[in-house]
Amino acid sequence: MVIAMREGCQKAEVAQVIAQLREYGLEPRIISPGPRVVLGVVEEISRALAQEIIASLADREEVEEINTFESSWKLVSRGFRPETSQVRLGRCQVGGPGVAVVAGPCAVESRAGILEAAAALAPLGAAGLRGGAFKPRTSPYSFRGLGEEGLKHLAEARELTGLPVVTEVLRASEVELVARYADVLQIGARNMQNFALLEAVGEVDRPVLLKRGLMATIKEWLLSAEYILARGNWQVILCERGIRSYDSETRNILDLSAVPVLKQHTHLPVMVDPSHAAGKRELVPALALAAVAAGADAIMVEVHPRPQEAFSDGRQSLSLEEFAAMMPRLEKVAQAVGRGLARP
Amino acid sequence: MVIAMREGCQKAEVAQVIAQLREYGLEPRIISPGPRVVLGVVEEISRALAQEIIASLADREEVEEINTFESSWKLVSRGFRPETSQVRLGRCQVGGPGVAVVAGPCAVESRAGILEAAAALAPLGAAGLRGGAFKPRTSPYSFRGLGEEGLKHLAEARELTGLPVVTEVLRASEVELVARYADVLQIGARNMQNFALLEAVGEVDRPVLLKRGLMATIKEWLLSAEYILARGNWQVILCERGIRSYDSETRNILDLSAVPVLKQHTHLPVMVDPSHAAGKRELVPALALAAVAAGADAIMVEVHPRPQEAFSDGRQSLSLEEFAAMMPRLEKVAQAVGRGLARP
Amino acid sequence: MVIAMREGCQKAEVAQVIAQLREYGLEPRIISPGPRVVLGVVEEISRALAQEIIASLADREEVEEINTFESSWKLVSRGFRPETSQVRLGRCQVGGPGVAVVAGPCAVESRAGILEAAAALAPLGAAGLRGGAFKPRTSPYSFRGLGEEGLKHLAEARELTGLPVVTEVLRASEVELVARYADVLQIGARNMQNFALLEAVGEVDRPVLLKRGLMATIKEWLLSAEYILARGNWQVILCERGIRSYDSETRNILDLSAVPVLKQHTHLPVMVDPSHAAGKRELVPALALAAVAAGADAIMVEVHPRPQEAFSDGRQSLSLEEFAAMMPRLEKVAQAVGRGLARP
Amino acid sequence: MVIAMREGCQKAEVAQVIAQLREYGLEPRIISPGPRVVLGVVEEISRALAQEIIASLADREEVEEINTFESSWKLVSRGFRPETSQVRLGRCQVGGPGVAVVAGPCAVESRAGILEAAAALAPLGAAGLRGGAFKPRTSPYSFRGLGEEGLKHLAEARELTGLPVVTEVLRASEVELVARYADVLQIGARNMQNFALLEAVGEVDRPVLLKRGLMATIKEWLLSAEYILARGNWQVILCERGIRSYDSETRNILDLSAVPVLKQHTHLPVMVDPSHAAGKRELVPALALAAVAAGADAIMVEVHPRPQEAFSDGRQSLSLEEFAAMMPRLEKVAQAVGRGLARP
Repeated sequence: MVIAMREGCQKAEVAQVIAQLREYGLEPRIISPGPRVVLGVVEEISRALAQEIIASLADREEVEEINTFESSWKLVSRGFRPETSQVRLGRCQVGGPGVAVVAGPCAVESRAGILEAAAALAPLGAAGLRGGAFKPRTSPYSFRGLGEEGLKHLAEARELTGLPVVTEVLRASEVELVARYADVLQIGARNMQNFALLEAVGEVDRPVLLKRGLMATIKEWLLSAEYILARGNWQVILCERGIRSYDSETRNILDLSAVPVLKQHTHLPVMVDPSHAAGKRELVPALALAAVAAGADAIMVEVHPRPQEAFSDGRQSLSLEEFAAMMPRLEKVAQAVGRGLARP
Repeated sequence: MVIAMREGCQKAEVAQVIAQLREYGLEPRIISPGPRVVLGVVEEISRALAQEIIASLADREEVEEINTFESSWKLVSRGFRPETSQVRLGRCQVGGPGVAVVAGPCAVESRAGILEAAAALAPLGAAGLRGGAFKPRTSPYSFRGLGEEGLKHLAEARELTGLPVVTEVLRASEVELVARYADVLQIGARNMQNFALLEAVGEVDRPVLLKRGLMATIKEWLLSAEYILARGNWQVILCERGIRSYDSETRNILDLSAVPVLKQHTHLPVMVDPSHAAGKRELVPALALAAVAAGADAIMVEVHPRPQEAFSDGRQSLSLEEFAAMMPRLEKVAQAVGRGLARP
Repeated sequence: MVIAMREGCQKAEVAQVIAQLREYGLEPRIISPGPRVVLGVVEEISRALAQEIIASLADREEVEEINTFESSWKLVSRGFRPETSQVRLGRCQVGGPGVAVVAGPCAVESRAGILEAAAALAPLGAAGLRGGAFKPRTSPYSFRGLGEEGLKHLAEARELTGLPVVTEVLRASEVELVARYADVLQIGARNMQNFALLEAVGEVDRPVLLKRGLMATIKEWLLSAEYILARGNWQVILCERGIRSYDSETRNILDLSAVPVLKQHTHLPVMVDPSHAAGKRELVPALALAAVAAGADAIMVEVHPRPQEAFSDGRQSLSLEEFAAMMPRLEKVAQAVGRGLARP
Repeated sequence: MVIAMREGCQKAEVAQVIAQLREYGLEPRIISPGPRVVLGVVEEISRALAQEIIASLADREEVEEINTFESSWKLVSRGFRPETSQVRLGRCQVGGPGVAVVAGPCAVESRAGILEAAAALAPLGAAGLRGGAFKPRTSPYSFRGLGEEGLKHLAEARELTGLPVVTEVLRASEVELVARYADVLQIGARNMQNFALLEAVGEVDRPVLLKRGLMATIKEWLLSAEYILARGNWQVILCERGIRSYDSETRNILDLSAVPVLKQHTHLPVMVDPSHAAGKRELVPALALAAVAAGADAIMVEVHPRPQEAFSDGRQSLSLEEFAAMMPRLEKVAQAVGRGLARP
């Protein structure tokens, strides 16, 4: 349940509404502090109770709207907040005028490897460093990442280069740990509807990058983002990374129409990951350029100093040379659509 | 890593291999007690270490096979265990000669409702009772179930009728709670690759019903089952429930070819849920009959005493009358393929 | 445009309506002779002209309904004709109480080959013989069939065995030729929306088997059938043969929910082809049984005396032994759902 | 069967090979005149005959390669012709340095309408005029276009504005008629595997625009193009127009990865149609920009002077104002990737 207060209402009025809700055993929280205060109630409420609450608030003029919208989103919608939200990526903002490029290997494979990658990527214009310390793996027997050790290497790479760190979190129980090291918490495609995890990252003060599920509709994706905002964390980036289709020419099919569709529906900034979509490095630059032209606020690409030696996803990783060659081309397209690259 | 011992090897030999692995800091466990003992090592192992271990065990004749099979399954394969596994469903076995029918409402909505449903279903031939206490919901504002209270109602329904209870678990942290009440732990489609949850249900002594993800290949599905077996829980039922497609005539498209495909690849028993696939009750009986004819070991259908009043999925729930009419037709088809219905 | 006359109206009244339409330069034809006479106008009519015609017929009481239904079907709907249509397959009827099994090789490869197949299939219970003389091929360099020579071999096989012949027609210009030899004209999946071809088979007095397109919705499929009925040929069988999906375990995914969905929407009989869906012979019997259990009126399977020597689709062709083993199992399931096998 | 002669071989040698093939009753044609002469044999050849022919040419040194490649393409491959082919579009070339923009209404609705559209589009930078005179329609009762009358209107619009005309042909029997009026013959998505039609357009001296089927793989699409080239017509443009997927946010999903994939595999130029993919006009400009950034050689968009009055596809048609606003943005992106817009 979301309760939107009228703009300009008094603090005391907000407090009264909160007190009234507490009488029902609920624990409302302020999920948007202003200019229009929004209160969120995330506890389960029966329909009967919801109607009772609505009735009890009916005569309060300072309450503008109460919504239970079971099959729709509210907080993420552009109607609710017309301007595009800006999400911190170190010293950059994703959703601002510049297009941010996040780059790095699929997984943190060793301290030396991630330091080498970061040191090479920073001067080439990357605005963030990606790398998995906890890897979701289809098989229980695959390499699952270095864990906390990998997080430490990422943090060291950030100290060395100033690049903020984007890394995946797999379990609700590990959110706090990953948040201690990372600048942005990534929720992977397989976890887009892992609601326990969405709620956990909704409770921390750390930007979240929410990847689209492999066969998620845009509506489902926005509702997953709504889970995070409803817990109070409004720092969310949506990342299109390809959906499943029938043609094996590419690993997945990049849905670039998602970019203008999301721009209509939501104020959240949009990132595109062409590497996981294409699955082949030679296709990545063309798709990265296309994503910027379509209006993406950020790009995430896999780059590895020696792709052929990568533990995972080497086939889709750019070499440093290929990344260096792509960046000025990206910048030109960004300028052609009235933007530029975000510089840390 | 999985280490298969030669059939007929001595307990002392097994103990020596375990001791040797412990020297590497690993905690091997016996994941199949016999006739061929299988040891599983679920800790992360680097490739270098894996090779060292393989070399160190090379001269032990009692070790038949060591496998790290990163992109393949082992424990679930029919090659590994030729006969179909039987999984407990109360007093029935899923995977035995009889086809088991699990029925019940989408969600436990009230004590009275689930008791009424169970009391009506038992004499009609149901072998199990389904009903969600923890519901995964696309929207954060939808009804998420009664929680532990719902589990208690299910347990009471079991006492009343003898029907074993199948119910979903959503979070690793709630596995123990749900296992206290449920006979079978259901992993829903959205969580098929929630590896934290798979590992958690792999650690308990409770049968698991693993639904196919909305976008999962059969290979990915079997690898998710492998996660559970690799932790030591071999009581796993695979449940086909429709995959996503482009035609809105049905909610999803039921992939009945999955039944014979799984029968080739794995010894795990196969269930089919036509309700979630079809999304319309009038299509359910035809698909249930087809599933049995295709070789399914079990069927799960949504049934609600008053479908039009259901909190969720009413459109796809059979009424009690429709369920009663379907059961003798199911039995005839089961007999036509040399089986019958499993009776508690 | 379709004009339905009131039941029991006079021949003279029908003639008057026809005369009136001819004044507009149209050539109406009787597309259903009764009990309710239906006139069809297949010429292109502008919206303005349609309205003029409707106005001019407004005061004729014997005209019950005029419909231009641009995005819907009419003639194929079960509302229009409640009982299931029966379509001739030699001495059998598809859509009657018995399930008809059509079998044969993918392509007619030689006179000896097709005679051998037909002679073997007839005593095993086949109700029809399939075999392609004109083959649609993805590549311009593949074997495209024996053409008219192949048709002659099929006709000879029919003389020998009494089995009616089902064979594909690829081009509007060849409809007459194929109809000279074949008992049923097959429209393949790739041609489901080849409207020139649909119209051509709508003009001949020969049953048509319309396969579902690889990517067709059920609505599109029914509208393609409507094209044929609107030209006056009501002898149409719909054949589900799998649609495209993302999992390479099977060649296509068999959509058995199409069977009950079609049974709701249309009076046309429904056939299922598990061979093209599965793409692997070992999956075919289970899917054939499932199709019968789901309510299919007919089954079409590829059978080849020596599958490993087949020019095309050998991987999915049953051997004669496998076909012989499947037939009694099919019959049992057919009996379990209150039918049997159609016998010529 | 394709026979590639060695570069620099004599005319007399080519004539001898042709003569030799004629002895087998075949009618070879020169499908590429040089620098490397290629002979094509499109008649059906049995495997036995193919082997006999290959043997009979084995000792001719001037024959470099004989290929029957049943499941692969040859003539369309970039290996066969490394430079991108240029295809005439009036005075422009598709595949040259400039990006060509083809615009116009879905259907030719009236003489006045198409003349108005053409007169408005030409000064805005369109390089071609689109408009359907023969429309493929899912329903037999929908408006199917003005036919030859519509072709005449298109030709008149070309006279008026100089814009070359792109229009669809639906039937092999109408290819000659449409070619009399059109500059480019369009094969629609539903006909991508209508092999009779592909062969018919392969026989005429008119550029062909081959749209991708709604669920065609890139491989199938290239093989359909191969059908056209194998008949001697090398003037083929490939047009990506979206494939079918599960999310109803857009009509289809635009597969922009097809652009770099095709650029790898084939020398044929690539067009993108964002209108049919998106199905909503507000998404079209972003996708058009993205297509140019991805490397498309041409864009085709639906534009209608009054979209809300369009007979078909009004929802996805740009207004003239929206088209005028898009063109300078397209030009900037084209320049950013080192190209510009093609000007007639």
